[in-house]
Amino acid sequence: MIELYHNDMSSCAQKVRLTLAEKGLEWSGHHLDLRKGPQLDPEYLKLNPMGVVPTLIDNGEVIIESTLILEYLDEVYPNPPLRPTSAVDKVRMRMWTKQLDEGLHAATGTLSTCIAFRHQHFDTKPTPELREAFYAKIPDPVKRARQRDVIENGMASEFLPGAARRFRKIYDDMEAALGQSSWLVGENYSLADIAYTPYLTRFEHLQLLAVLETRPHLANWYDRIKARPNYAVGIGEWLSDKYLVLMKREGLEAQALFMEFFDAARP
Amino acid sequence: MIELYHNDMSSCAQKVRLTLAEKGLEWSGHHLDLRKGPQLDPEYLKLNPMGVVPTLIDNGEVIIESTLILEYLDEVYPNPPLRPTSAVDKVRMRMWTKQLDEGLHAATGTLSTCIAFRHQHFDTKPTPELREAFYAKIPDPVKRARQRDVIENGMASEFLPGAARRFRKIYDDMEAALGQSSWLVGENYSLADIAYTPYLTRFEHLQLLAVLETRPHLANWYDRIKARPNYAVGIGEWLSDKYLVLMKREGLEAQALFMEFFDAARP
Repeated sequence: MIELYHNDMSSCAQKVRLTLAEKGLEWSGHHLDLRKGPQLDPEYLKLNPMGVVPTLIDNGEVIIESTLILEYLDEVYPNPPLRPTSAVDKVRMRMWTKQLDEGLHAATGTLSTCIAFRHQHFDTKPTPELREAFYAKIPDPVKRARQRDVIENGMASEFLPGAARRFRKIYDDMEAALGQSSWLVGENYSLADIAYTPYLTRFEHLQLLAVLETRPHLANWYDRIKARPNYAVGIGEWLSDKYLVLMKREGLEAQALFMEFFDAARP
Repeated sequence: MIELYHNDMSSCAQKVRLTLAEKGLEWSGHHLDLRKGPQLDPEYLKLNPMGVVPTLIDNGEVIIESTLILEYLDEVYPNPPLRPTSAVDKVRMRMWTKQLDEGLHAATGTLSTCIAFRHQHFDTKPTPELREAFYAKIPDPVKRARQRDVIENGMASEFLPGAARRFRKIYDDMEAALGQSSWLVGENYSLADIAYTPYLTRFEHLQLLAVLETRPHLANWYDRIKARPNYAVGIGEWLSDKYLVLMKREGLEAQALFMEFFDAARP
């Protein structure tokens, strides 16, 4: 029996649900409301010491880190295969997925918070003192400084241009790859396509799909991605109106300025 | 025929040479003197757009990123196997290797530069103007700011305590794991052990092996690592006196202060 600790709108949980749906696997879920903090409960930290979702439990084995969960699922449940057969193409697939773990996922957090999620922090912690108490609990001083900056300064955060630049680079790379083949690695849908799906979805929710206007292959890829049955099951059915309304409202406000950063970035 | 673009003392090149040696594979090398900058030549950037070593070419296929090169070599040349057989243990192995790519390798660069390599920059670029011209060529402003800080400020760099903290955490995690099993993942030497070898070697060269005094399992692991034949072939034969002398001299100077940062870090 597969169990999944997850969250409805978390990008990394979306990747795992997309994979489970593609393989037609049954699973039972534990939904964590991340804004309430159950991911930091001592019991959950025993499963996932980083205090994040998702955590997969399969036959009693605890698997964390979404990129590794995806590889695990494809190894243990190989039908349909979601990794290329050749060793060279596996490297190409992992060249895509590892970039998410080495900055792109963090960049998504930066832009989502700068544009939208900061308002949730202001709502739940309306005074500077309450927010400082929240920041003080973040153990890593580098992460603490970044979190403070993105929440307090929003679109003026010093981290936003770097996040825009990072996405500019990857979307240009995706456009080039998808001009050569149907999917990110050759002619078969793979874990690379799954892993990138939630980030385009986040851009859609934040009203930033103007990035697709000059990237026709990427736009076509995203259309095909959304038409797949696993998109409805892994992402569509879990959309939370509360988040969608916030992201749409604040995204409409921020989109012009964000696109300025994005288009000005050195590709 | 396997070709390898590498550097004698580069940690990521060391990992690949250790793996090639363990598998008894023949290869021909192109040694790059990184301080002279051939890794930024347009011809090399076509192979490795990030301008780093190593780059492996196997049967005409270009493979970059040392962590992925290691997995590639084990898939294409499976004897002796260097990845665990079970899917769960593969996840455990990748939990180790991915951490190197998500900050630990960068932390190694930070501490090596703060302690020793900064002096090479001062030797080759003795005026502030020459160094500023060097920094100005680094495209990413975040990396540019970090590089400037570690070179100019050395042991007073604001990035050094974070690098020390990162290593404190991983060495504690390694000590715990090696208290449970002979190698980082179970009873078989694997790519996880190979991937971490160069970082202990760097600590040795920088005169920082005091970190082993309170970590007996890690100390014993490092002894066993160094006694393996692939250590001499992949690391020992490539040691450069020029670097060793610099690291020893400056390491002796810095070790007391570094150990203060290290021991004070929240584990």
